[in-house]
Amino acid sequence: MRNIGMLVSYDGTAYSGFQIQPNEDTVQGRIEQAIKMLTNESISIHASGRTDAGVHAYGQVFNFMTESAIPIDRWTIAINSRLPDDIVIRETWEAPLSFHSRYSSKRKTYRYSIIAERKPDVFRRLTEFFYPKPLNVRAMQEAITHIIGEHDFTSFTSPKSTKVSNVRTIYDAHIEYEPSVTGEEGRGRIHIVVTGNGFLYNMVRIIAGTMIRVGQGKLAPHDIPRILEAKNRQVAGPLAVPQGLMLWSVEYGGEERLDLINNVSE
Amino acid sequence: MRNIGMLVSYDGTAYSGFQIQPNEDTVQGRIEQAIKMLTNESISIHASGRTDAGVHAYGQVFNFMTESAIPIDRWTIAINSRLPDDIVIRETWEAPLSFHSRYSSKRKTYRYSIIAERKPDVFRRLTEFFYPKPLNVRAMQEAITHIIGEHDFTSFTSPKSTKVSNVRTIYDAHIEYEPSVTGEEGRGRIHIVVTGNGFLYNMVRIIAGTMIRVGQGKLAPHDIPRILEAKNRQVAGPLAVPQGLMLWSVEYGGEERLDLINNVSE
Repeated sequence: MRNIGMLVSYDGTAYSGFQIQPNEDTVQGRIEQAIKMLTNESISIHASGRTDAGVHAYGQVFNFMTESAIPIDRWTIAINSRLPDDIVIRETWEAPLSFHSRYSSKRKTYRYSIIAERKPDVFRRLTEFFYPKPLNVRAMQEAITHIIGEHDFTSFTSPKSTKVSNVRTIYDAHIEYEPSVTGEEGRGRIHIVVTGNGFLYNMVRIIAGTMIRVGQGKLAPHDIPRILEAKNRQVAGPLAVPQGLMLWSVEYGGEERLDLINNVSE
Repeated sequence: MRNIGMLVSYDGTAYSGFQIQPNEDTVQGRIEQAIKMLTNESISIHASGRTDAGVHAYGQVFNFMTESAIPIDRWTIAINSRLPDDIVIRETWEAPLSFHSRYSSKRKTYRYSIIAERKPDVFRRLTEFFYPKPLNVRAMQEAITHIIGEHDFTSFTSPKSTKVSNVRTIYDAHIEYEPSVTGEEGRGRIHIVVTGNGFLYNMVRIIAGTMIRVGQGKLAPHDIPRILEAKNRQVAGPLAVPQGLMLWSVEYGGEERLDLINNVSE
């Protein structure tokens, strides 16, 4: 038995999310189908986490157990040739049997991208949220620092969330700002980048929706601690649209990471 | 009667090219339909030139005559709200009656984009050509200079071209190179940028195919003058795939340009 790890990028536009569901076209379904075409095994893959319909991944990680003897340096090309163009395996490695993409993960980073220009960019319309007015980027930069640290994120998750605890630790949260070529203040591209030990359902999209409210001046940076303390979904901002969200990277510590570095196949 | 000019971006992926054709979904067809929905007029638009199926435009220009009294600052939003998301009007202006997007144009610029990485970028797969090996960028940079100037481009057009003359003037041609984050030579993004007074059918895609041959070492930079002199399609490189090509901008001189600058509506 081998444990194979893979790093995958996907454009989530065409899929009903990552997780396999009956009668739906999903990223997981496509990947499991490709593995079956290659190895004739009906296996289940384990990802670092699911992504919702329309959400993308630059660096999603998954693993699966296989009896296949296919050499590690053949997998990436073999699976890619059996996948549609909007799902691309970037790396494959031999993982320790104890490695699990979700349970072994130490940190995950998400990016939420906004374009605050007069017109949308037609070539990035599926990966960014178009907001036609300027945003107060400085206020957003100040506001986002308030979510860093260990907090109860009940205000930033769906009331449908069934987690035992809504406490999560955010290691880093910042705004990357690419000013507009027009030079107008508050225009250009704004990326909300959040790294944490785990994320609740809809958490990054509600953080993004809340930061947009701050950028609009409808909330102030100092409102964020109050929203966290309220532990009430109603007081945070709206759920931002899915297409602006991208699972950027998943980090592992110790052995698994070493394994990833040493046994990467291209 | 008014002459309205518009600047438009489109993702050509879903269309059978720019030019209207019966029973085909075309960019021109969609724009004329949107104008009809707005003004109830059945008009024909005149573009700076057609683009083939799968080819994109960042800055295509078109104009049309209308009896509509709609104020100039209302058109952009009104037409965009009647267009699909993959076609976006960027600007609208009141043009002199003598203005014609094609006949009045002075210079056009095209970009052909190549990604020479081990894996394609899933988020740009529809706007760049994926080439999995390194390319000799320095040789490509030298080769492209040979097409600058006035030349007979018979070798760089389809034998089906029906133009009276295949002589065109290239004002500028250069390679923009974004090196790979891996630091490996010849990897990264390579953009072929060509500005001229006009382009023959398939001309930029054959220039791109020929530059790729140079990057592969199958042709040398000094082969380009010989290929031009041969006036024979067989000696140039292959036709590069359409999705890497983008009509970048169209420039106008004198009055029309002044008009564009002064009467732009957002």
